[in-house]
Amino acid sequence: MTMNVVSIDSLTKHPGESVTIRGWVYHLRAKGKLAFLVLRDGSGIAQCVFVKSEVDDATFDEAQRLSMESAIEITGEVRLDARAPGGAEIGVRAMKTYQKAAADFPIQPKEHGTGFLMENRHLWLRSRKPWACLRVRDAVIRSIRGFFYERGFVNIDSPIFTPAACEGTSTLFEVEYFDEKAYLTQSGQLYAEAAAMAFGKVFTFGPTFRAEKSKTRRHLTEFWMIEPEVAFAELNDIMDLAEAMLCHIVKSVLAERREELTILERDITKLEKIVPPFPRLSYTDAVDLLKQKGLPFEYGGDLGAPDETAIGENYDRPVMVHRYPHEVKAFYMKRDPQDSRFALCVDVLAPEGYGEIIGGSQREENLDILEGRIADHKLPREAFAWYLDLRRFGSVPHSGFGMGLERCVAWLTGVDHLRECIPFPRMLYRIYP
Amino acid sequence: MTMNVVSIDSLTKHPGESVTIRGWVYHLRAKGKLAFLVLRDGSGIAQCVFVKSEVDDATFDEAQRLSMESAIEITGEVRLDARAPGGAEIGVRAMKTYQKAAADFPIQPKEHGTGFLMENRHLWLRSRKPWACLRVRDAVIRSIRGFFYERGFVNIDSPIFTPAACEGTSTLFEVEYFDEKAYLTQSGQLYAEAAAMAFGKVFTFGPTFRAEKSKTRRHLTEFWMIEPEVAFAELNDIMDLAEAMLCHIVKSVLAERREELTILERDITKLEKIVPPFPRLSYTDAVDLLKQKGLPFEYGGDLGAPDETAIGENYDRPVMVHRYPHEVKAFYMKRDPQDSRFALCVDVLAPEGYGEIIGGSQREENLDILEGRIADHKLPREAFAWYLDLRRFGSVPHSGFGMGLERCVAWLTGVDHLRECIPFPRMLYRIYP
Repeated sequence: MTMNVVSIDSLTKHPGESVTIRGWVYHLRAKGKLAFLVLRDGSGIAQCVFVKSEVDDATFDEAQRLSMESAIEITGEVRLDARAPGGAEIGVRAMKTYQKAAADFPIQPKEHGTGFLMENRHLWLRSRKPWACLRVRDAVIRSIRGFFYERGFVNIDSPIFTPAACEGTSTLFEVEYFDEKAYLTQSGQLYAEAAAMAFGKVFTFGPTFRAEKSKTRRHLTEFWMIEPEVAFAELNDIMDLAEAMLCHIVKSVLAERREELTILERDITKLEKIVPPFPRLSYTDAVDLLKQKGLPFEYGGDLGAPDETAIGENYDRPVMVHRYPHEVKAFYMKRDPQDSRFALCVDVLAPEGYGEIIGGSQREENLDILEGRIADHKLPREAFAWYLDLRRFGSVPHSGFGMGLERCVAWLTGVDHLRECIPFPRMLYRIYP
Repeated sequence: MTMNVVSIDSLTKHPGESVTIRGWVYHLRAKGKLAFLVLRDGSGIAQCVFVKSEVDDATFDEAQRLSMESAIEITGEVRLDARAPGGAEIGVRAMKTYQKAAADFPIQPKEHGTGFLMENRHLWLRSRKPWACLRVRDAVIRSIRGFFYERGFVNIDSPIFTPAACEGTSTLFEVEYFDEKAYLTQSGQLYAEAAAMAFGKVFTFGPTFRAEKSKTRRHLTEFWMIEPEVAFAELNDIMDLAEAMLCHIVKSVLAERREELTILERDITKLEKIVPPFPRLSYTDAVDLLKQKGLPFEYGGDLGAPDETAIGENYDRPVMVHRYPHEVKAFYMKRDPQDSRFALCVDVLAPEGYGEIIGGSQREENLDILEGRIADHKLPREAFAWYLDLRRFGSVPHSGFGMGLERCVAWLTGVDHLRECIPFPRMLYRIYP
């Protein structure tokens, strides 16, 4: 007889059938002539019920002695049960053991310190919350890619090794590249600009690096970034694009990862409020708001994390703060033709205190102005020669933004620390496992 | 009147309509009272016809003086024409110039050396062949992701910074990671194995790095790799998976990127032959084949590039060579229980001389054997402690493979050199632009 091997998340499609599932012991409770074993297979968890009279004695005995995380195969009948996790349980007929796990599985159903859990990240991934959080991350990645593909964007990967820094060298990782020095990319933007002139609408989506010595819940040395760039788009166009993208992501996650959000104890009603239009505030309006709230803030400075939190908390959806003073923003941003004190830029601040998740701008397309900026910022002109070429040959208005994937996932899942939003986080003093 | 701004690839959906397109001058030919301007907008190219009597004089004059790559906006009527590139042309009514490009655009319709083209990669991307090749790459990425998502795989990104080497340190890039040393990943596999025990079926898809001093058409220092890993899968299962994935990719590219393949002068009939089943040869059979072909080859050694080419050329579809002598393969591969001289591994060789595009194996799941291997290979045990944990806690048969994205794209597009299959290639002596 061929086995009907199925995944746990599909059990409800097989009511009454004899199926085989394979996975790991997540929980076990024996009670006289009954044993209840919760099996996880990566797609979900299911309760498997052993009744002494329905399996052979050896199987019943073995089941009771299984250690947590032992690998087994179970064959039995699917019974729909609305109270069961996943909506179905298995009446066990047979079991096969692949491996009885060592008894000292480090992660137990008790409180562990985060340092300990991170040291065991390779095993902690099996627990419900990390599992749920990274499945949300997976859905966010898919949702973002789907969003851009539907709109005719082309995925153009920017390089990781770069010859020069986009925004100063203090937070760059340096690599010996044969006989030269190279740096690990902090942003694919400049390359995305080149690609936008060739493909019209592009996005890069890859890891970026920042040698930040700060050890906060908002920092990773390695994180993933999505960066769309659109030829002929102006600031308002990419603000619309960012708004539409975030709404699309939230909708996808609510549709595909509701169970995971529940495991994470996320208040789903808060996510259901994420619909357009998002409030749009000029920097000047944002500073007024901070003053109304009684926060000390000097007009002209960049918004710090506490300021972003205070502004974000004022709204039930992401807020777009646009037109910052140009002094606090990057050299490549175009100035506002209405008021040249400001840059045509936007930061999107997530609600509930999650702070900035997106930064974007319209790019300066004038060659002379851009050359002047590179000189003013004392950037190495030769490293930017190719970038300046984009302004010599068919320069057009263009705009784009970057979103930190893990920051978006942290907001959606409601977890506190970015390190839980990436499978194997890299931070100051953390490159293991 | 609001403008009806459309992309060139959608022109045939607007017959008879007045539309506006925005892009760059790709080609220009004036002939008395007519001017033919080919505009590219990143989505495609379209011929725009200026008739002196149908536009104002200033526009007609300006159009004739536009330099290549000048950025313009054209408004006019869409006329279907099967002979036109893309199937439609524009009868111009009005034009606006964003920027007249400098006259010295380096890439001209003549032969250039590859070194020169690579130095101008940021501009070369605008030419038809690079454009077509990278649009194929984009479709391959989407197709791969779609394939795995449909089958319930979860995208788990492996880290780029790693504490230790998977297969020796000679080709690793080293990074100063604060007070430690870190290395740039060569493969996400070990992390994918950890994730497979948590999520069942996973894939990683990101950049990987190899400090290869060799300067051949088959080497990049930075390339993208897709690596699925499946719990409870054995060698045959992942051979089936690799076969299905490749067929899916070819089908998607033929459906979505036929025009691009034509631009690349790819023989499409060769791709249409890529259907299951793929031939499967044991290493021993492969060596026999090499001997029949009169190639010098010593049984027991690894297959070199010329051997792979010779084997691949024997078939009209990818060939799967399995069960190599374990000495030439990685420490983590399981030995064949039928004959322990061999590893349970598979290399997939593309036809037409493109060589290896996929390498995979069933992984050794026994703790003691794996510990012995790590010792035999003199690998640092402490760096692999977490990896060994996977064999202590619920070890199961599992298998996976890795496919180099650019190698796959090179085969599909028929281009000779991997450097054309990635937007900004990184090689020995090449990190610019």
